[in-house]
Amino acid sequence: MIIIKIGGGNSLNIPGIIAGLAELKEQAIIVHGANAIRDKLLADLGIEKKVITSVSGYSSVYTDQQALDVLIMAYAGLRNKRIVELCQQHGINAIGLSGLDGKVIQGRRNAGIKTYEGGKLKIIRDFSGKPQVINKSLLQLLLDNGYTPVLSVPLIDENNFAINSENDDIVNLLQETFQAEKIIQFIEAPGFLDNEQDPASLIKSISPAELKKREEQVSGRMKRKMLALTKLFESGAHQVIISDGRRERPLQDALNGEGTVIQ
Amino acid sequence: MIIIKIGGGNSLNIPGIIAGLAELKEQAIIVHGANAIRDKLLADLGIEKKVITSVSGYSSVYTDQQALDVLIMAYAGLRNKRIVELCQQHGINAIGLSGLDGKVIQGRRNAGIKTYEGGKLKIIRDFSGKPQVINKSLLQLLLDNGYTPVLSVPLIDENNFAINSENDDIVNLLQETFQAEKIIQFIEAPGFLDNEQDPASLIKSISPAELKKREEQVSGRMKRKMLALTKLFESGAHQVIISDGRRERPLQDALNGEGTVIQ
Repeated sequence: MIIIKIGGGNSLNIPGIIAGLAELKEQAIIVHGANAIRDKLLADLGIEKKVITSVSGYSSVYTDQQALDVLIMAYAGLRNKRIVELCQQHGINAIGLSGLDGKVIQGRRNAGIKTYEGGKLKIIRDFSGKPQVINKSLLQLLLDNGYTPVLSVPLIDENNFAINSENDDIVNLLQETFQAEKIIQFIEAPGFLDNEQDPASLIKSISPAELKKREEQVSGRMKRKMLALTKLFESGAHQVIISDGRRERPLQDALNGEGTVIQ
Repeated sequence: MIIIKIGGGNSLNIPGIIAGLAELKEQAIIVHGANAIRDKLLADLGIEKKVITSVSGYSSVYTDQQALDVLIMAYAGLRNKRIVELCQQHGINAIGLSGLDGKVIQGRRNAGIKTYEGGKLKIIRDFSGKPQVINKSLLQLLLDNGYTPVLSVPLIDENNFAINSENDDIVNLLQETFQAEKIIQFIEAPGFLDNEQDPASLIKSISPAELKKREEQVSGRMKRKMLALTKLFESGAHQVIISDGRRERPLQDALNGEGTVIQ
């Protein structure tokens, strides 16, 4: 099995990724984002994207019911169904599911974020959390019957409410559950860059051990990314390929080692 | 089995319908609309709802790719996932599917609508059509494993493109395929009214034969509605209940014969 993570950017060649998957004829689970669609929808609807900063300086999107409505429309709605449509056009019998559907991705809602509001310490709770359990029997049932799952947020929390979550955490839980041979992550860059500003600084290959060492040297978004990758190997990953999703044949190029190969 | 059709209006008590279904503990397939959400989304996005009138005077929504995007967000996205969430909160393990997912509802795209444009006769083709085949094995697989399907447009056409369709036609095809004992349709009225302007003119019960006779006497939206109901009986329906979805316990009331019982 192969797990394919498709980023939420606008310039990814999703038709190319899906065409590549059709050639591959291997069992796959797709997890996708929809950042760009969500942000455009928020802007078009005149809804401000709320970001909350914790006392420890960590920023995250604040997901209230309105933000969740927009998230559902963008992720589980437009992006998910258009990917399923593309799959069908390439002979892949895909089924798009949010974590709510058949409780396929169950999570735990975050306890709250400590933040300062008007000088006072407050705990603010939104509808976000972390995935805890995959409904493996449902995904296995679909896979065994020739269907390809296409997964997106929201998840379902411990009280059966929709919550937002990080795709990195979902992919990690899928890896724990299915022990895929390969995980391919499509992003809008040539791969993992030593210097984010310089596309020529591509790291062609790196070991999980090296990755962990580097993780201690960086901060912010990069640290989170490295932490997520390190976790994947703790969850039994054999090979992770981070590759450019904007190319003509993104999947074949990724499988040929274009991008960053971590193993 | 019971087929439940939930209209697309804003004032339906969907939590009440779902709570009722949880008490019932009978196999069910839900088909829902999302008219009101779609229309609000179009308005909020400043997109004009295009309506096309055929030479025979029949008006219908014109579905281009942009309208389809909005339809997907409203129907397969927001309304579908929020109904699935409600189901989960009531212990019903629902799975929301559009017709694209696992090709669960395959249709045929309309050939085009004859219309006058600037005095000239033109054939205009949009992304709409009619359902032809249900992927029964997929729905049966889900039902057999304890999942409740929650279905919505778009469908998938003969070239694997997303198309819009009428829910009445979907319900009819489901009835042909599954031969449900009951079909319940929740609307924003007390039931089938003799005079649409007068809620007191509720028709409490009517036979399929009478319905067919009436169909010949009316026109427009009402004729279409009656034609759809007549078709249901041609597809083997035993009992159709059209009931008020705005009540406190819509499903129990419907099963107790509140509304219009057709049999």
